[in-house]
Amino acid sequence: MKRFEASPVTVQQALRSLSAAGEIETRPGVGTFTRAKPVLRGVDFSWQTAALGTPQQKLEPATSLRSEPGNVIALHSGYPRAELLPVRLVRSALSRAARGNAAVSRADSAGMPELQSWFAQELESSMLPGLAAPSARDVVVFPGSQAALSALYRSLIGAGEPLLIESPTYWGAMLAARQVGVRLVPVPSGPDGPDPVALERAFAQTRARAFYAQPNFANPTGAQWAPESARRVLEVVRANGAFLIEDDWAHDFGITASSHPLAAQDSDGHVVYIRSLTKSVSPAIRVAAVVARGPARERLLAEAQAQAMYVSPVLQEAAVDVVSQPGWRSHLHSLRARLQEQRDHLAAAVSQHVPQAELAQLPTGGLNLWLRLPDETDLVELQDRCRVRGVMVAVGDEWFPAEPTGRYIRLNYAGADPAAFTDAAAVLGQELEQVKF
Amino acid sequence: MKRFEASPVTVQQALRSLSAAGEIETRPGVGTFTRAKPVLRGVDFSWQTAALGTPQQKLEPATSLRSEPGNVIALHSGYPRAELLPVRLVRSALSRAARGNAAVSRADSAGMPELQSWFAQELESSMLPGLAAPSARDVVVFPGSQAALSALYRSLIGAGEPLLIESPTYWGAMLAARQVGVRLVPVPSGPDGPDPVALERAFAQTRARAFYAQPNFANPTGAQWAPESARRVLEVVRANGAFLIEDDWAHDFGITASSHPLAAQDSDGHVVYIRSLTKSVSPAIRVAAVVARGPARERLLAEAQAQAMYVSPVLQEAAVDVVSQPGWRSHLHSLRARLQEQRDHLAAAVSQHVPQAELAQLPTGGLNLWLRLPDETDLVELQDRCRVRGVMVAVGDEWFPAEPTGRYIRLNYAGADPAAFTDAAAVLGQELEQVKF
Repeated sequence: MKRFEASPVTVQQALRSLSAAGEIETRPGVGTFTRAKPVLRGVDFSWQTAALGTPQQKLEPATSLRSEPGNVIALHSGYPRAELLPVRLVRSALSRAARGNAAVSRADSAGMPELQSWFAQELESSMLPGLAAPSARDVVVFPGSQAALSALYRSLIGAGEPLLIESPTYWGAMLAARQVGVRLVPVPSGPDGPDPVALERAFAQTRARAFYAQPNFANPTGAQWAPESARRVLEVVRANGAFLIEDDWAHDFGITASSHPLAAQDSDGHVVYIRSLTKSVSPAIRVAAVVARGPARERLLAEAQAQAMYVSPVLQEAAVDVVSQPGWRSHLHSLRARLQEQRDHLAAAVSQHVPQAELAQLPTGGLNLWLRLPDETDLVELQDRCRVRGVMVAVGDEWFPAEPTGRYIRLNYAGADPAAFTDAAAVLGQELEQVKF
Repeated sequence: MKRFEASPVTVQQALRSLSAAGEIETRPGVGTFTRAKPVLRGVDFSWQTAALGTPQQKLEPATSLRSEPGNVIALHSGYPRAELLPVRLVRSALSRAARGNAAVSRADSAGMPELQSWFAQELESSMLPGLAAPSARDVVVFPGSQAALSALYRSLIGAGEPLLIESPTYWGAMLAARQVGVRLVPVPSGPDGPDPVALERAFAQTRARAFYAQPNFANPTGAQWAPESARRVLEVVRANGAFLIEDDWAHDFGITASSHPLAAQDSDGHVVYIRSLTKSVSPAIRVAAVVARGPARERLLAEAQAQAMYVSPVLQEAAVDVVSQPGWRSHLHSLRARLQEQRDHLAAAVSQHVPQAELAQLPTGGLNLWLRLPDETDLVELQDRCRVRGVMVAVGDEWFPAEPTGRYIRLNYAGADPAAFTDAAAVLGQELEQVKF
């Protein structure tokens, strides 16, 4: 202060900046010092190899989690860009939560009652009349749907047991299964959903007690099950005394169709329903819910408690605040139009610049185009070459529980500015010519 | 609006209140209706019994998670009361995070670099000179220490494998172990820490690869290991090629002593260090870190990704904001004095009104008194009778991995207003007279 004739506040700010930059360090009760040079000798951790053994499962996250420098065109990501989020609602909700009781309290393990109630009511609003609707008590809140999947697999299935799963499907659902040690049994799924006969066969062969699926705007294909398929799948699940783990990840991302949860046709607890707000509200609002009824709910809740104790009430309160605002409805309304625009823009650019790519169907919801490329394509080489030229794409192999049935890539039309789509498609088209086996 | 001559805003507010109270429901695209009467027939979920089978482990959370009505004296809880939290800092930090980029973005699975860096630097600041300090990269951020424990057990130990654990110790650490299927091997631990010879014997008998312990202000006893014990335990762990999972839960709750992490004496990755901010910053800031080095860190990070993907950047940014403020240091300073006052007040009240209770040691840090009661005490009856009279206490049995070695209760001196301590102790003393076997 003396030397620079600066105020105490200025000096404290300077110290904080230097500390954040790692230039100085404070040893409490001693003083503040310029940072000591790090010890550079390599440490030998090889003893750990014996303690750890070989891993039971290689757990590797997929491409779509990769963060990217600001200047690339991110078609690989699993999230919508910030411009498609209800940013103003999220900021006000978090600010309100910061001022309230939620900021300094904990929550019940099952979740905050207002949020449980909102999830139950949302599902009830699409139920057929006469069916017993879920209650707020049937809802368990998790810190994101990944945690929900882990807890569901552990509580409903268990290590070593089989789980039927759509193929292709969400890599995170398979990652959680590998983590828990659940044995994946792929069931092929097309534009109308899985073939009920194939599903019946898989149940008979494996005696599985659960089937994981995304009936609405599946990740990655965008498929929405035909109503008749949905009805028959539900029959097969019921007849086998099994659970359908329905992941309604794209509930808020309908474009020319809306999500119709199968859980809305179920009142005897066969459908266990996952609904996340992370992608549509904000990736910072890590809140998902599982609606499960009967003993399954008890088993799941015990698991949730042992796994995470409870979810931050700040995030829960902000979540219920956002989705209760009138602005949330209007946001979803305009989101629909913007997703349609982004989808059509990317589909047109791909069709013009990547004529070799085959789009099985223009999705009626969700965030992704699922493109089949010629069988002689070297996908990893394609991904690398595109990345070098500033375009990130996701290799389709990551969405198959077993060997991929073709050469696919997934392009997210919601994660980047559509102004860049033509350039990105041109790069993809050019590089595709270079990467034949 | 017409009928009541009210503004659209007023009507919308009324509709939101009615909706929150469950009186009306909105079906999108159709309209708003008074809520349909619920379907009352009981649903038969008994088919689930066959699908679920019997649980591998009964997972039951402990008394100290129980929430209580506002008018009881809560001596059972595991948390400090709001008056002992840096409430103003937490609110400003959350408000700032609400306005920044963190509110609408995701984070790396390992955590936000600023927060990783803070945890690494905090540990470094108590390291002996000459030891290789951990880097920010050695830190993995979790949504609370319960999630960290699950991930650690799964990645470092594995289902069916043994884990040495202090007895008595934190029930959450045992709950996570049961959830993962880890086999607990109790090692008795006294006021100076575990007996290194008993620890060596347990390693030899079980070939365990890890030991879970709380060397500073252990929950529930408050014990802080003597420096010589700490050194010898670390030697035993090293000699057995094992990990010490050090849970420094009470790092911020020193009273007449400060926490001296064993991790600060380790540079070859034998100590895996858990540091949570949930109890000292705010229960709503569910953020904990694990400092792990070498291959253990890689294994742990893969597990963290599969389990929760990432922790909300809002909570991470708020956490690093709070602990970087000058006000955090002064808060910790005044917290020390207030904890001492609360501790002494409760200890005095117990000594006066519950002369039968034996306090082995006045803890030098932490949040709890660990009281031994006469061997003929019916603890559950005592807990029930006290609750009826508005005093919540925690039965000590929950802190023992096996059968309890005596009749203990744990009283938290930080969770309630000390003005009520004398009354609470009087109730406890009176009821204790009534519950002899």
